[in-house]
Amino acid sequence: MPSTALFTDHYELTMLQAALKNGTADRHSVFEVFTRRLPEGRRYGVVAGTGRVLDAVENFRFDPEMLEYLRARRVVDGATIDWLADYRFSGDIWGYPEGEVYFPGSPLLRVESTFAECVLLETVILSILNHDSAIAAAASRMASAAGDRPLIEMGARRTHELAAVAASRAAYIGGFTLTSDLAAGFRYDIPTTGTSAHAFTLLHDDERSAFEAQVAALGSGTTLLVDTYDVTQAVRTAVEVAGTGLGAVRIDSGDLLLVAHRVRQQLDEMGATKTRIVVTSDLDEYAIASLAAAPVDAYGVGTQLVVGSGHPTCSMVYKLVARAKSGDPAAPLEPVAKKALGGKTSMGGRKWAARRLDADGVAEAEVVGTGEVPAELAEQQLLVQLVKAGEVLVREPLDEVRDRHAAARANLPLSAAQLSRGEAVIPTEYA
Amino acid sequence: MPSTALFTDHYELTMLQAALKNGTADRHSVFEVFTRRLPEGRRYGVVAGTGRVLDAVENFRFDPEMLEYLRARRVVDGATIDWLADYRFSGDIWGYPEGEVYFPGSPLLRVESTFAECVLLETVILSILNHDSAIAAAASRMASAAGDRPLIEMGARRTHELAAVAASRAAYIGGFTLTSDLAAGFRYDIPTTGTSAHAFTLLHDDERSAFEAQVAALGSGTTLLVDTYDVTQAVRTAVEVAGTGLGAVRIDSGDLLLVAHRVRQQLDEMGATKTRIVVTSDLDEYAIASLAAAPVDAYGVGTQLVVGSGHPTCSMVYKLVARAKSGDPAAPLEPVAKKALGGKTSMGGRKWAARRLDADGVAEAEVVGTGEVPAELAEQQLLVQLVKAGEVLVREPLDEVRDRHAAARANLPLSAAQLSRGEAVIPTEYA
Repeated sequence: MPSTALFTDHYELTMLQAALKNGTADRHSVFEVFTRRLPEGRRYGVVAGTGRVLDAVENFRFDPEMLEYLRARRVVDGATIDWLADYRFSGDIWGYPEGEVYFPGSPLLRVESTFAECVLLETVILSILNHDSAIAAAASRMASAAGDRPLIEMGARRTHELAAVAASRAAYIGGFTLTSDLAAGFRYDIPTTGTSAHAFTLLHDDERSAFEAQVAALGSGTTLLVDTYDVTQAVRTAVEVAGTGLGAVRIDSGDLLLVAHRVRQQLDEMGATKTRIVVTSDLDEYAIASLAAAPVDAYGVGTQLVVGSGHPTCSMVYKLVARAKSGDPAAPLEPVAKKALGGKTSMGGRKWAARRLDADGVAEAEVVGTGEVPAELAEQQLLVQLVKAGEVLVREPLDEVRDRHAAARANLPLSAAQLSRGEAVIPTEYA
Repeated sequence: MPSTALFTDHYELTMLQAALKNGTADRHSVFEVFTRRLPEGRRYGVVAGTGRVLDAVENFRFDPEMLEYLRARRVVDGATIDWLADYRFSGDIWGYPEGEVYFPGSPLLRVESTFAECVLLETVILSILNHDSAIAAAASRMASAAGDRPLIEMGARRTHELAAVAASRAAYIGGFTLTSDLAAGFRYDIPTTGTSAHAFTLLHDDERSAFEAQVAALGSGTTLLVDTYDVTQAVRTAVEVAGTGLGAVRIDSGDLLLVAHRVRQQLDEMGATKTRIVVTSDLDEYAIASLAAAPVDAYGVGTQLVVGSGHPTCSMVYKLVARAKSGDPAAPLEPVAKKALGGKTSMGGRKWAARRLDADGVAEAEVVGTGEVPAELAEQQLLVQLVKAGEVLVREPLDEVRDRHAAARANLPLSAAQLSRGEAVIPTEYA
C-alpha cells in the first residue's frame, strides 16, 4: 500500500510543530468522529470506510521524498520533520463496527494517543469516512427500495477513478450485489458484471450482427442491450439470435415502467419466459421504488449512487473531546469543548454509546454518554476496539460487514425504510 | 505512475472479446466526449482533468497480476487476455485545451483508433473528466464571486482522499490560489497553507497559551483562529500576543458578515490595521458573493468546493460517432448515432468546434459541425491535438491551464458571472 501520510492538511503539521515546541504535543488526547446531524431528511446513517481507515492508519508513514518536499517547501521546521520521519501511530482506536448504522452525535470513531499522534490523522480519517459513509447510506436506501432484486453498481464513470473503487466497496456494504468496476473487483473481490454499450451495436452494420457477435462470444446467457434503435424490433431480434435461453435484456432509456411491461409481455409471448429484464438510466432510490410493481429483475445504478443520491458527503468532524493537562501518562483526562457562535458547540469527554432496544428487540434510542455505562445498557454498547497500541485488531471480510449492515437496518423501526424526508428514525439521548 | 487499466467497466472487456472474435475490433472508430446539457442553471462548463486523462492513457497497461485476476474471475477468454497483455493506445486524441469553457454539445475530447483500442478507455476518461470538470466549474463560479480576494481550497476531509487531490488541482485551474492539502502540494506543486484548528486551542490550558505557542513556533505572520470561545476576547488576546504585525485571524462560525465587520473594527482600533481576516465555515459561491462588501481578505472553502456546489458530476458521455465498415485502414468512416427513446439521441460524425466571436471579440456562439470548417471560423477552432499515434504531445504547467481558464471566462458575455440560475451563456449552433 502506498503511504497515506500526505492526505493531511497543512495545518495539522504546523499545529504539531507548535505543540512539539511548547511541550503540549505529548498530552494524552481523545479525538472523536461524529456528525451533528444527518443529511437533510435522512433517517439513519451507515458507517462505511472503517476498514480503509485502518489501512490508512497503518500506512501513515512519511517516506524520504515526502519529507524532502516538506523541507523544501518549508511547511514545518527541521525538528518537526525529524519527528515525522519516525511517525507511526502507537495509540488505540475504538469505533462502531463497519456497516453499523449511526445517528446525530454517535461517537462512531474514537482515536486516543498523544495529541501529536492523533492530530495528524484527522484529514485522512474524515476523507474516508465522509466519502464512504455517504455512498453506503445512499446504497442502503436503494437496497431497501429494491427489496430482493439485485442492484448493480455502475457509477465508476461518474466520479473520480479511485473514489469509484471505494464507492463500489461502500455500495456493496449498503446492499448492492455486483459492480461493473473491475478495479473494485480486483481490489476488494466484489463480483463484477457487465452488459453491452450502444457503441457495440453501432460498431456493427446492423443490430442483428451485434447481437450475433455478443452471443457467439459470451453465450446466450449474456445480457443484450435493446434500446439502440427500436426496442420491440430489438427484443424480437435478440430472442431470434440467442433463443429463448437469452439471459437478459437491458433497457437504458424511455419510460422504464411502460417499456419493462411491454418487453416482459413480448419476451413471454416469444417463449423467453426466463429472460430477465435489467433496467438502467439515472436510477435513484425513488425511481427504483416506483418500479417495484414492474417486471424488472435487476437495477443498474450509476450516477446517483456515486454522488450519494443528493448527499455526497456526511459532515462528520474529528474533534478533541478530552486531554491531559500535562505529558505525564498518569495525568487525568479533562473534557474539552468549543463554545462559540453558530451552534457548533459539541459535548466534551470520552464517550460511550449504546442502542437501547424496546421489548420486541427493536432499536428505540441511541444513548450517548460519558463516564460509567448504565448496567442495563452494558450489553448494547456499540464501540469495539479496532486498534490497540498501534496494532490493527480487526480485519473483516466485506461480506461480514455487508451482513452486519443488513442486520442493523433490519433492527431499526420500520419507518427507517421510508424514502420520504423525515427525522432520524430513533432519537439520540445524552445520558 | 500505477496502472490505470482496471479503471474500466467489465463490459468494455466483454465487448472487446466479442469484437475480437467477429473481426469488428479493428474497425477504425471515433469516440467523442460531450454533455447533452449543463448542470441545471449553470451558464458554462469548465474542461478540467485533461492532463490527468493523458497520464491515464499513457499508464493504461495491464500488468501480470491484473491479467491473472481477469483470467481467474473469467471476465474474458484467453485470447482477449493475450490481446490485453500487449495493449497500449496507438491512436490520436484531440480535445479542448484544459481550462477552456464548454457548452452543451461541445465535443470536448475526441479519441480515434480501432474500436478495440478506444472502447477500453471509456470509463477512466469519463471518471476523470466528469469529476474534475465538476469541481473546476464550481471553483470558477466561486472565483468570480471572490473577485480579487484569494480562495483557499480546504475540502480534503469532505471527499475521498485521492479525489481530494484531483479536486485541489481542478480548484486551482478554476481560480483558487492555495490548498490545505499536502498531497496536492506534493503531486502538483500547488502552494499550500494552513491556519489552526479548535483542537489546538483546546489542547492548551487557555487560549492565550495556545496563541503564544503558535506565534512562538510560526511567527507573528501566522493566522490565529479566534472563535473557539469568545471572538472579541480572542482578537484582543491575539493582538496582545502577536503584536500589531499579526498576519491574520480566522473566523469559522457565526454570522460572518457581522463578525467580520466587528473584528475589522477591533483590529483597527488596536492598531493591527494590516492583519487580514480569513473566513471559513461552509462557504459556497453565494456566501462568498454575500461577503463582497465585508472586510474579508481571503475565503477558505471546503465542502461545497469538493462536492461541486450541488453538482458533483457533469453527465459527460463517451459515444461512438463514426466508424469504418471494415478493418481496412483505408475504409471510409461512416457517422453513427443511437436513435431511441427518451431524448438520448446524439449527433453522428466526427466533429469540429469553434467559438464565434462578436465584433468586440466576445464569445457569441459555440459552433459545432461535421465536415469542412467554414473559413470564417477557421481561426476560432477549439480542438487541439493532444496525442498523436499514441504519443502524448501536450504537457502543460498548471499555471498555464489556470491562466487559460481565466482568459476563456473573461471572454464570455458578462452574464457568465451571474450566479443566478439561467441558460448557457452562449448558444450551441450546429453547422
